Amino acid sequence: MTDLSNRIGAVNDVLNAVSLLTWDSRTMMPGGGAETRGQQIATLTRLARDILLSEETRTALKAAEAAAQPGYTAEGQQVIQTREAIEHHSRVPADLIEARAGLRTVAQSAWIEARSKSDFSIFAPHLEKTVELSRRYADAIGWEKHPYDALISLYEPGETVEGLQSLFATLKAGLKPILAAVQARPQPRTDFLTRDYPEEGQRAFGLKMAQKFGYDLTRGRLDTTVHPFEVSFTRNDVRITTRYRRDFLPASIFGTFHEAGHGMYEQNVDPAYTRTTLATDLIGLYAVGGTSFGAHESQSRLWENHVGRNRAFWRLNFAELQAQFPDKLADVTADEFYAAVTRIQPGFIRVEADELTYDFHIMLRVEIERRLIEGSLAVKDLPEVWNAAIKSDLGLTVPDDARGVLQDVHWSTGYFGSFPTYTVGNVMAAQLMDTLRREQPDIDIALADGDYASLAGWLRGKVWQHGRRFTRDDLLIRATGRALDPKPYLAYLTGKYA
Amino acid sequence: MTDLSNRIGAVNDVLNAVSLLTWDSRTMMPGGGAETRGQQIATLTRLARDILLSEETRTALKAAEAAAQPGYTAEGQQVIQTREAIEHHSRVPADLIEARAGLRTVAQSAWIEARSKSDFSIFAPHLEKTVELSRRYADAIGWEKHPYDALISLYEPGETVEGLQSLFATLKAGLKPILAAVQARPQPRTDFLTRDYPEEGQRAFGLKMAQKFGYDLTRGRLDTTVHPFEVSFTRNDVRITTRYRRDFLPASIFGTFHEAGHGMYEQNVDPAYTRTTLATDLIGLYAVGGTSFGAHESQSRLWENHVGRNRAFWRLNFAELQAQFPDKLADVTADEFYAAVTRIQPGFIRVEADELTYDFHIMLRVEIERRLIEGSLAVKDLPEVWNAAIKSDLGLTVPDDARGVLQDVHWSTGYFGSFPTYTVGNVMAAQLMDTLRREQPDIDIALADGDYASLAGWLRGKVWQHGRRFTRDDLLIRATGRALDPKPYLAYLTGKYA
Repeated sequence: MTDLSNRIGAVNDVLNAVSLLTWDSRTMMPGGGAETRGQQIATLTRLARDILLSEETRTALKAAEAAAQPGYTAEGQQVIQTREAIEHHSRVPADLIEARAGLRTVAQSAWIEARSKSDFSIFAPHLEKTVELSRRYADAIGWEKHPYDALISLYEPGETVEGLQSLFATLKAGLKPILAAVQARPQPRTDFLTRDYPEEGQRAFGLKMAQKFGYDLTRGRLDTTVHPFEVSFTRNDVRITTRYRRDFLPASIFGTFHEAGHGMYEQNVDPAYTRTTLATDLIGLYAVGGTSFGAHESQSRLWENHVGRNRAFWRLNFAELQAQFPDKLADVTADEFYAAVTRIQPGFIRVEADELTYDFHIMLRVEIERRLIEGSLAVKDLPEVWNAAIKSDLGLTVPDDARGVLQDVHWSTGYFGSFPTYTVGNVMAAQLMDTLRREQPDIDIALADGDYASLAGWLRGKVWQHGRRFTRDDLLIRATGRALDPKPYLAYLTGKYA
Repeated sequence: MTDLSNRIGAVNDVLNAVSLLTWDSRTMMPGGGAETRGQQIATLTRLARDILLSEETRTALKAAEAAAQPGYTAEGQQVIQTREAIEHHSRVPADLIEARAGLRTVAQSAWIEARSKSDFSIFAPHLEKTVELSRRYADAIGWEKHPYDALISLYEPGETVEGLQSLFATLKAGLKPILAAVQARPQPRTDFLTRDYPEEGQRAFGLKMAQKFGYDLTRGRLDTTVHPFEVSFTRNDVRITTRYRRDFLPASIFGTFHEAGHGMYEQNVDPAYTRTTLATDLIGLYAVGGTSFGAHESQSRLWENHVGRNRAFWRLNFAELQAQFPDKLADVTADEFYAAVTRIQPGFIRVEADELTYDFHIMLRVEIERRLIEGSLAVKDLPEVWNAAIKSDLGLTVPDDARGVLQDVHWSTGYFGSFPTYTVGNVMAAQLMDTLRREQPDIDIALADGDYASLAGWLRGKVWQHGRRFTRDDLLIRATGRALDPKPYLAYLTGKYA
């Protein structure tokens, strides 16, 4: 086992270096460094793959397989995950990887131009090629029921078209009446959200709360970026970023809570898993401790929405925020603030969507991806399909493609299959909270008192510490008694909004 | 050539990643990340060496050798340097590298304890082992006249004990009368250097001057560290750090000038040399464009001392500094400021030494290293030899070993052979300035007018752009007509201080 551990440890070290190169490029790097930084990231990613696929690793794997324990031991999982990753990468030909990388550069430029001109025809030919290569990629990876399953598995192993169609049917049916109920009510005041809020006070409040939740600054730090993210270089160094909008206070507050949720997941993976496959995505070639994108999103959404977008939270903590901005928030009550930050308003833009309409944006994208990959939808018909769905789901008329089908970067990068994980995260967060409430009926009283350690401790035991040892559904079954289930999520949204 | 270029490019990419991991650990990393960061750096350094020594690189080298041009072409140099590096690393056994790395960790802890208790006996046994391994290392590298030559060559290729002994004899003889002349004169006032200077104003002045010199912030940045340094990740991203002492203004000013000098060297290496051996130290496994440690130090010392510690510089720029600290510097003239920052005062501590006594500290250390490595001096006798030299060279009685033989980190890390490069840098800086003055008699008028572009342009043409294409002495012969020569340095110091 030692030898395989050393090999995997080296892969993890290299991938953590890639993560640092990326973090730095988004937070610290002077503009001139972009081109050579790109070469450095490409070289190190290729090296990580080379080490994984090398003869030495294969030999070490065979020795480890001979010595492996049966069942869910960490050592056994490392053997299984290494084998799977070697087989995965062996199935994907080098020329396809190169073709995808080459197309990505061109397609992203075209997408940027298309979006700025709101002209889908500029992007369409590149998207057609991207779909074609994604389909070839799916075939290389291998699939049984649906080619899109192969792409989904890159981000959410075990999830399938079949599973998502059932999930989405239930969600759509459940969400629509809640949305109708909310829209029948008058809107709360939100005028105070858009006053001028200096960055310093936003940062102080966000960081103070993140630390209260349990985000550990001795193994983390908070920086500023245009697009907030969380990234780790082992559990010992887990960094988050946020964006401060002086004219819209909620952006940094809930953004920081969100990234702190991601960060706590990584900071609390069992230390014994450091530099093993249980803290490394060997298929995605990414050093991460969370077991899937959806599971990760469940933790960020849980702290953002269940903890942060919560009336009791603001009754307890609004005075703290007021203390940062005494002249700006003097005329606002905690309940008014809560009402404003949970206001529901259908819109065109996914990343600005509220908690109730967000999943409609996701379901539309997933549906389109599935049909593109299976060949039942032509790229040229995308705007029409998109606009029709926004009309039927949210009652809105899309004014232009920039605010419609061209709004997300994802399709220009070729990352088909990642959209489902956003909704998976929402569903999983509610399912976990539902179980916790059954096990600890006083948890809401604890949270209302500012005791976040009880929640964090429960999540650590049920989710965080396990790293990538269990798949998402195995984790859920162990934690809640069942696989992914939308009922608690709909019950949560109904209770909160209907 | 292409294939060798790709292999060397990959080595350079990995070594640049190591440099970023190191920069981050000294500027940004939360404390908890230290242990796993150390593993990441070790893995990547080993990988860089593995790529260099791989069969693929050897095969590519043979093909490149067959196609190489004779003479000093960049391609030809890459072939020669790759061959030399492979031979170097092949001569050093893996168990010796491991033994040195293992000892380093233990010896550094012992040194920290020894220095804090000012008790040399705690460090002595570890230093004995370090000397022994350094001698084995020298033997593995190979040497002709003196084993210390092998260690010096790691930092200053081409330099030797013989060369240094001749250099130091001339320097000692020349420096002593200058020092005596200075000490016969009254000391200038320095009271204003130790007033309270907020960091912000120090940073603004230092950075403004560095940019005026030519340090390019679109390919660089300035951060804060305890021990200032410069590091690059290709010429497109060259970062410097400094330290702000509120109670001692010159520290950050001349520290920033010094690091900007290093930074401009790296920023101005020929772009065609990016990711080649001409911007990579394949023997030291460090991605650097400067051709030797001494040549690098010549550039930092040139901007720090020849440009910065210059009467005309302060007559031009003192008002700018006063503007940052109007209430602190109102009672000071430019000439008084110049006199204060060029005050000569022998002291115990190397890193605090003035321009005239600095080399005595270096010569003492080099003499001790040479004798330790050749076996003519026992570790136990170090304090006695040290204290006697400080008495005879500087007229001071060392009060304790913490302010004597234990003051530098170098010997605990096993980096024997790097001390000579500090004095080499001082000598080389003066030699370059001497030649420039002969070629451009108006250069001092230009500098006095704040025209730093003439100096920077000359250095770019003579030194910076060449990267590692020429050795230090080849570079000097091309630039000044002769190899390293202490006469201009002594003439400069005589003119400035005697």
